Amino acid sequence: MDVMHETRSLISAHKVSGAKVYNAAGDDIGVIREMMLDKRSGVVAHAIMTFGGFLGIGEKYHPIPWPLLKYDTGLDGYVVDLTGAQLKAAPAYEAGEDPGWANKTYSEQVYGYYDAPPYWELS
Amino acid sequence: MDVMHETRSLISAHKVSGAKVYNAAGDDIGVIREMMLDKRSGVVAHAIMTFGGFLGIGEKYHPIPWPLLKYDTGLDGYVVDLTGAQLKAAPAYEAGEDPGWANKTYSEQVYGYYDAPPYWELS
Repeated sequence: MDVMHETRSLISAHKVSGAKVYNAAGDDIGVIREMMLDKRSGVVAHAIMTFGGFLGIGEKYHPIPWPLLKYDTGLDGYVVDLTGAQLKAAPAYEAGEDPGWANKTYSEQVYGYYDAPPYWELS
Repeated sequence: MDVMHETRSLISAHKVSGAKVYNAAGDDIGVIREMMLDKRSGVVAHAIMTFGGFLGIGEKYHPIPWPLLKYDTGLDGYVVDLTGAQLKAAPAYEAGEDPGWANKTYSEQVYGYYDAPPYWELS
């Protein structure tokens, strides 16, 4: 993409997809694969991450509420302050599986698990 | 991406990038190439579109405020209710050119041109 990918306040969707994810200790734990946007408000609802190797549970998709991701310029990636145990027990689904995206209860389950401020109450 | 790409309320970033754009008359006028997200709030600030052939002005990047894009399931793309004249006079930049993304004044200029509700006043 021949456009700017990042400024102090803005970042391109292409730069986010594929970005590395670290834990609070700075360990490389995974990658952001995709984002799910709320059509109405245009807010990023979930970052879809994979943590395969780190968790040792095979390739799974973990939806993470966007507010939990903190961009770290030094690491050039996102930091999520979550333990391996927290992620292992978190909502996740296999490749090819639909966890129930069409039902808002799934988003509520994800946001509830992480105790994140609900995106659907914004704006 | 082996994840759901769209539900009634959610849509994946991958599905948005590359989506076709139509005018209110249903003419195919361009493509969404990229999105710029506000890092803090996670809201889509701008959709970056190209309208090359339609406008007859060569390949340019047009940042469009997200609230102006309406998804149309029948067309499987986005509708923007803007005339060719409006788009020709709109903020745009050439490939490889930085219009000034690092300055909020550029976002203000874009949102001002389209008279869109400022994303930086949300949440």
